Amino acid sequence: MRQDEEADIKYRFGKAIRRRRRELDFSQEKLGELAGLHPTYISGIERGDRNPSLENIEKLAQALDLSLAELFTRYVAEAKGKP
Amino acid sequence: MRQDEEADIKYRFGKAIRRRRRELDFSQEKLGELAGLHPTYISGIERGDRNPSLENIEKLAQALDLSLAELFTRYVAEAKGKP
Repeated sequence: MRQDEEADIKYRFGKAIRRRRRELDFSQEKLGELAGLHPTYISGIERGDRNPSLENIEKLAQALDLSLAELFTRYVAEAKGKP
Repeated sequence: MRQDEEADIKYRFGKAIRRRRRELDFSQEKLGELAGLHPTYISGIERGDRNPSLENIEKLAQALDLSLAELFTRYVAEAKGKP
């Protein structure tokens, strides 16, 4: 997988999490609380700086009231890569 | 997220990877080669012992000729949890 593709999935995942969080009108603090993750970790994810594990991805999906399938189909797949 | 749910997603993810690998008639060595991951890492994932990162999940999906949406919708969602 090329370097830019790797960076791209983290970037797209971050955009997807941000989009869904805003749809639910959650702050990063609230999402962190619901997911059991630190708010700075949430902001790092949304910036595309983090490479979350499968378990943290599921914690985020559950906190955002999405199945993993919904998260990856309706949000991550639709998120644009880096301009 | 409860402890058993966490273990469950790794278990279900492993089953999903194994099912798709066998559909393609790949050995763990071949999947490792295509994904750029060590074969022992692949077997650890399939046993549900590993907690792969987003980037490694994408490497696996690409090696298995699946989008992330397909992987999570058609394979992970359909994998049974621990008996």
